[in-house]
Amino acid sequence: MKSKVNFETNPEIYKHWELIIEESRASLIMKVDEDEGFFEGYKLKLNSYDIGVDIELADAVQRLRFEHPQINSIIVKSGNDKAFCAGANIKMLASSDHAHKVNFCKFTNETRNFLENSSKESSQLFICLVEGVCAGGGYELALACDHIILLDDGSSSISLPEVPLLAVLPGTGGLTRLTDKRKIRRDLADVFCTMEEGVKAKKAKEWCLVDTISKKTSLNDQLDTLIKEKSRHKIQTDNLIGIKLNEIQKNRINEDQIEYSTLSVLIDRERKSATIKINAPLEQAPTNINDIMKQGDNFWLLRCARELDDAVLNLRFNELEIGIIIFKTFGEISNVISYDKLFELYKDNWFVREISFFWTRVFKRIDLTSRSLTTLIDPNSCFAGFLCELIFSADRSYMAENEFEDYDNKEASIILSNSNFGRFLMSNDMSRLETRFIGLNEQLLLAKQNLDKRILAKEAYDLGLVTFIFDDIDWDDEIRIFIEERSSFSPDSMVGLEANLRFPGKETMETKIFGRLSAWQNWIFQRPSAVGEDGALKKYGTGNKGQYTKERT
Amino acid sequence: MKSKVNFETNPEIYKHWELIIEESRASLIMKVDEDEGFFEGYKLKLNSYDIGVDIELADAVQRLRFEHPQINSIIVKSGNDKAFCAGANIKMLASSDHAHKVNFCKFTNETRNFLENSSKESSQLFICLVEGVCAGGGYELALACDHIILLDDGSSSISLPEVPLLAVLPGTGGLTRLTDKRKIRRDLADVFCTMEEGVKAKKAKEWCLVDTISKKTSLNDQLDTLIKEKSRHKIQTDNLIGIKLNEIQKNRINEDQIEYSTLSVLIDRERKSATIKINAPLEQAPTNINDIMKQGDNFWLLRCARELDDAVLNLRFNELEIGIIIFKTFGEISNVISYDKLFELYKDNWFVREISFFWTRVFKRIDLTSRSLTTLIDPNSCFAGFLCELIFSADRSYMAENEFEDYDNKEASIILSNSNFGRFLMSNDMSRLETRFIGLNEQLLLAKQNLDKRILAKEAYDLGLVTFIFDDIDWDDEIRIFIEERSSFSPDSMVGLEANLRFPGKETMETKIFGRLSAWQNWIFQRPSAVGEDGALKKYGTGNKGQYTKERT
Repeated sequence: MKSKVNFETNPEIYKHWELIIEESRASLIMKVDEDEGFFEGYKLKLNSYDIGVDIELADAVQRLRFEHPQINSIIVKSGNDKAFCAGANIKMLASSDHAHKVNFCKFTNETRNFLENSSKESSQLFICLVEGVCAGGGYELALACDHIILLDDGSSSISLPEVPLLAVLPGTGGLTRLTDKRKIRRDLADVFCTMEEGVKAKKAKEWCLVDTISKKTSLNDQLDTLIKEKSRHKIQTDNLIGIKLNEIQKNRINEDQIEYSTLSVLIDRERKSATIKINAPLEQAPTNINDIMKQGDNFWLLRCARELDDAVLNLRFNELEIGIIIFKTFGEISNVISYDKLFELYKDNWFVREISFFWTRVFKRIDLTSRSLTTLIDPNSCFAGFLCELIFSADRSYMAENEFEDYDNKEASIILSNSNFGRFLMSNDMSRLETRFIGLNEQLLLAKQNLDKRILAKEAYDLGLVTFIFDDIDWDDEIRIFIEERSSFSPDSMVGLEANLRFPGKETMETKIFGRLSAWQNWIFQRPSAVGEDGALKKYGTGNKGQYTKERT
Repeated sequence: MKSKVNFETNPEIYKHWELIIEESRASLIMKVDEDEGFFEGYKLKLNSYDIGVDIELADAVQRLRFEHPQINSIIVKSGNDKAFCAGANIKMLASSDHAHKVNFCKFTNETRNFLENSSKESSQLFICLVEGVCAGGGYELALACDHIILLDDGSSSISLPEVPLLAVLPGTGGLTRLTDKRKIRRDLADVFCTMEEGVKAKKAKEWCLVDTISKKTSLNDQLDTLIKEKSRHKIQTDNLIGIKLNEIQKNRINEDQIEYSTLSVLIDRERKSATIKINAPLEQAPTNINDIMKQGDNFWLLRCARELDDAVLNLRFNELEIGIIIFKTFGEISNVISYDKLFELYKDNWFVREISFFWTRVFKRIDLTSRSLTTLIDPNSCFAGFLCELIFSADRSYMAENEFEDYDNKEASIILSNSNFGRFLMSNDMSRLETRFIGLNEQLLLAKQNLDKRILAKEAYDLGLVTFIFDDIDWDDEIRIFIEERSSFSPDSMVGLEANLRFPGKETMETKIFGRLSAWQNWIFQRPSAVGEDGALKKYGTGNKGQYTKERT
């Protein structure tokens, strides 16, 4: 069932969703085409979903922010007669290999987090209108919205039947959002999560599982009132006319090479590594906001974010054996700086702000990519400002020290800016430098004292900004040895190591979803009771129940 | 390799440790007898350990607090010529089933946490003196100490070689303590955790992996200075003469029934449940502290804690198919209250304080026990004060409502006390009620307003203190239905569900170790690259390397 996953889509070719825009209100209607499953072998009945359905949802959430900035409320509802959404498709899960299950869940988790970010960052309020069956991942989608309305019609219901029915967890944020977001008491959450049938309107409201229950006749009035009360006014001084996100410029040269307009991806299959090289813009950034807006999706900062996101997702889903991602940059560092300055200069402009939040999401996606992240800073690099986040996302970073003959005797340098001190928060709500220097405030302060200046290798090393520095003589060998050694380790132990070391210190709902909850779900996704021949996932729909190992672990 | 694990031991019969007491200083010397592995089939070479070794360590840590309260510093060192400690025994891990690996790791994690608690709570400072090889779990033991001294002799070293050598994680707190306790920068932690050979004195100090490095000749002086500087004086007004912990009173009636002096355990194999019933003391508590001290380990509060701890550990390790633990109490509630009051009354007395901290550890152990915890409050119950923590530890609690005919028409009631509002903190550093009502401050306040009074079922339900209330007519049926239903679920999905719902809200180093780190380790403990026939754990010591699946997940 392997086929390349492509993350590009647009509303005109959606198979499973409809996006309707009406002034400041949008409707996002889920109407899954059961015959258009992403892979073969299952039907997407009852608005159940697979990766294809979720790619469209992620696209819609993204377009709402860029193409429709005037929107302040989005109603998520179903276009299916019988169900709001039955959750992730079970047959798809049962027939997927472990890696796809894990990748699929991670992507859907990211999409739900991004949806939550829309409300916080861009005042785009998501209201979920539940009519019919809303089970498992369906209710988890609802949980990611700001407000849940459940129809009080005697039949509409919500449930998290994963445990009793499938022997897996409500792992797309469900367990964590119940307790941490909705503050459901843990014993009531236990009861709810072990009820196959779920609850209808009255009980759902009593237990705070939904925000509002409504009769069908009064629904529209309630919705209007709610939107009036809850939706925040967009900043009226902004010119809230969206920009169109056209297809990204991507040229697949061969199996191992993709050229985007701002970066390239080069795969070395022998060493199991992929190099993502970002090229600096060829010119200084425009300084006039009208010029920037006019460029629309051609604006370098936006283009680069979209292309990097696509490149990373492509590696995640389509290149499972590539265990190492190497980040490099190339070009004129002053051009990068000129773009980086725009984040500060136009921080009140909706478009630049959206791009900044988009970079936050891209960097978060990188933090959560289970490949060894390595950043190489050579004399041709242009790591400045926001691009330095790639140094601090990395599991390790290597920097070239002193002059390099093959690089016209240039020296590598990096330049920090305000962008590295809180603009792009990680899932743990801290900046990458704060996370790096956790408990070491002096080091963080020292770094801050070196803003906007060229930092050479020795100083970067002393400041703790890079892991290793090597000179011209050792550079190539050391990098080669590292890559070869890293490729020789067990990919699984790398996943576990990196998942732990990347998130020191405090946790947030997001880090708990990706750390605690996903880790347990991944564990269960390996266990015979769930995925064995007689496990619940495999037996679902056959009329027979899953057979469980008896031992507690 | 199944044989019953027994958690009772004492220094006179230790096989692997020696505990030497000299005035205010103790030495805890690890000298593992390689021929005394707990199971068959491996030798405990180079001070490597298995559950048997760790049970003795846990016992020593416990005895230091009760039997030797005057001790303010404990030097942990090796009695083996070649090694400080080579970590968990690999052959033991390779030959253990999944459940034992997980159980073993959890117990060793608890022991290391308890060791850390000793310093914080009882000013018993642990100084780890590393001479020779200190690898994997060996260094993780060192990490749990307050201060690590590494011998600067050109050969002594520390390492976490799990990833490169065994394809598993430093999962006994290692990864979390590196970043969260010792504040090792995440990229340096990455480097350290992928170095098979580890580091010697100079580098170890530079990277903050140890606190002090010392030449052999100056070691004793350094040690003396360190102890003088760091160890806190014990409260001199206390009568710091310890009490002896004798063998606990335990009578195994048959395979399904154990009678302790304060409680009983009754197993129902058909329903896969075990009932732990705590019997209230038969008399009021002594009120004079001298009388209490004279009772020593016969003092009810201490006896009950020791017996409950033993009962829970026994179920964890020796009854893997028993998925449900039911907590009940029986007897005169006013007697329980009289004991509960002592925690407050003698909170400055070292002995009562130690018992209070011990209960904290027992309750934590219960929170982390991966069985469905259910508390039943019937008309004969005596849940008051500290015993109410069993209601709030439980995944669900059921309370009898109104009079019950078979119980002489008595009504069930519970009584809260100050003990429920911060005396017994969970691993997340919050009380169980605070955790239960996370984000619902009003509910917490309401509960607080009902201190020291008899709370009947309806009120307990309205206050959110119990999950369900049932009357005489429904009680038996409802409990039976719940137990049967719970037993029918996949044990694995229960583990995952409970591990997530029990810890809403904020995280601490302890919860991160049991949540994030352990979950990833458990996942890896299922993966072919680690535990498959050609996995690294199985191939270790054969001269062949492990074969790894190539895909990243």
